[in-house]
Amino acid sequence: MTFHAESRLASPDLSACVAFMPARVEQGPRYGEALVTLSPRHAQGAREVRVRWSLHGAAGTALVIVQGGISADRYVVAAGGNPGWWSDIVGDGRAIDTRHCRVLAIDWISSADLGGDALAVGSEDQADAIAAVLDLLGEARASAYVGASYGAMVGLAFAARHPQRLGRLVAIAGAHRAHPLSVAIRNIQREVVRFARAHGDTASGLDLARRLAMTTYRGEREFAERCADAPQLVDGRYHFAEEGWLGAAGARFAQRFSAERFLALSESIDLHAVAPQDVRVPTTLIGFSSDRVVPLADLCELQLNLGAAAQLHVIDTRYGHDGFLKEPAQVGALLREALVEH
Amino acid sequence: MTFHAESRLASPDLSACVAFMPARVEQGPRYGEALVTLSPRHAQGAREVRVRWSLHGAAGTALVIVQGGISADRYVVAAGGNPGWWSDIVGDGRAIDTRHCRVLAIDWISSADLGGDALAVGSEDQADAIAAVLDLLGEARASAYVGASYGAMVGLAFAARHPQRLGRLVAIAGAHRAHPLSVAIRNIQREVVRFARAHGDTASGLDLARRLAMTTYRGEREFAERCADAPQLVDGRYHFAEEGWLGAAGARFAQRFSAERFLALSESIDLHAVAPQDVRVPTTLIGFSSDRVVPLADLCELQLNLGAAAQLHVIDTRYGHDGFLKEPAQVGALLREALVEH
Repeated sequence: MTFHAESRLASPDLSACVAFMPARVEQGPRYGEALVTLSPRHAQGAREVRVRWSLHGAAGTALVIVQGGISADRYVVAAGGNPGWWSDIVGDGRAIDTRHCRVLAIDWISSADLGGDALAVGSEDQADAIAAVLDLLGEARASAYVGASYGAMVGLAFAARHPQRLGRLVAIAGAHRAHPLSVAIRNIQREVVRFARAHGDTASGLDLARRLAMTTYRGEREFAERCADAPQLVDGRYHFAEEGWLGAAGARFAQRFSAERFLALSESIDLHAVAPQDVRVPTTLIGFSSDRVVPLADLCELQLNLGAAAQLHVIDTRYGHDGFLKEPAQVGALLREALVEH
Repeated sequence: MTFHAESRLASPDLSACVAFMPARVEQGPRYGEALVTLSPRHAQGAREVRVRWSLHGAAGTALVIVQGGISADRYVVAAGGNPGWWSDIVGDGRAIDTRHCRVLAIDWISSADLGGDALAVGSEDQADAIAAVLDLLGEARASAYVGASYGAMVGLAFAARHPQRLGRLVAIAGAHRAHPLSVAIRNIQREVVRFARAHGDTASGLDLARRLAMTTYRGEREFAERCADAPQLVDGRYHFAEEGWLGAAGARFAQRFSAERFLALSESIDLHAVAPQDVRVPTTLIGFSSDRVVPLADLCELQLNLGAAAQLHVIDTRYGHDGFLKEPAQVGALLREALVEH
């Protein structure tokens, strides 16, 4: 692996440091769409599928695949006025330093992208789509895959299906399978969306589903801190602090997400299943102490049974599953460590 | 306190034991309705309210008030073909032994019972309703109040408002306030019911709300054990083991519960607030290690600040908040201990 994390450059003399860095050419981000051939996990036969990708970073440097949760997209890095969903972690001078590596990301494909006969979209399909984009870009291999939440699940599928194309997997808050309690809660989210859609008010369904998802993403302590205010009587009904916070998040989500896409990607999490022993790529697992979506016990089970060397790091945080967004300093430090040349 | 738990009778000679027991008269259960005067917490002025009560056990023995969660009722004890919602704990020979004490319970009152001007029903109103039933029955005082979940919250309100009428409070899986994360999840349950009702399908709303509630009542490990089966493809869609289990529970709930009652009692939990220092009755707190509705931290805070001597017992269980229903042996042992004459 050729990626070189800045934190391991020992010299305080920056001009000396530069001499050790790979040659690079200044280059803006690239965004593209690829027509790739996939044989989906939950459909019969091959078909062409459109995959939207982005590539940020300095030409000639190591390639790192970066993928987030089901509501994340290929706009990982701050660029062109877009803040990027993980710009605390990825960018010039960040833990995944786009001065010294290139970052590839795709927009998740949905069932509808696979054709009408696809019963579902598998995490395997996302992994194969990423591999197909690597082909298109003429990249035999990525130095690392860094995935969080659903992105970690897809990373495990990628490592199991394309081990020769990956140097190291970093899986953050994602395991070899969804926990049954989380499956149950996502099922209810999907039922609420289907119910609302059947009654002609999909937006309200997405809003409620997102509020429910938020109760699982965030830590118990965070709720206690954010929602200390007493309920307020408004228009003859008590309103609780929790409603304001989650309601705003739900409304934002309903505006930007389609029901079809939500249903497909939420179900894809629940269908995800990778045998840990099939992952034969060096792996770093990162979990969060207060994560109620992905219990640490599942990450321990994954580590114990993984088919290659695997480290598990646990970050103590109040932010629950969203620790990958809310704890950039701690996550970043572990990423610098994991991505440095071993 | 005159209640005498059987477990403290040291002699193995049963005929000798009987000599120590209070005199008792064989008597069937009594069920009644009382018209009581209440000044509700969330309305102006006094009004008459109908309260349904039950009384089980041997005449002339100590009185124990027993109250459960919002979906529980006054049919605590197995009687007349009715199984009783807590018959593992309350009955002849059980931890709350109806051969040696009398058990009083009420059906929770709802906002609608308070009159159309009541904005909500408070845990204080339930406590005052119980006190009014005591008046009606000519009982100056109860030896103990044993409440679980919402029943524990009401017990704290009862102890704070009517301390002279209570010997000991046993509060199981209930605290001085609802945890904000639980408030958030119950808010979503109520929003789902309101949404479904507005679209003319209240039953589906209650079903979904109950499924969601179930995900909070049960432990993480229990989900893992019950829902190990792979999803099944039925009618072109994957169905998960979690759907079958929770769906059946949701459908049963929708058949037996009204939206009005669910909305009122769910909100009453969230409005509940008792200052721990106002509880000046000896108290036994019981919590469950895997309870995600009432975190142990809240019970610790309650114990530390309670206005009288308080013990906290934690039962290690996989059953979460429903431990009060699912761990009768452990709960029963603690109740025998707590209810024995001190």
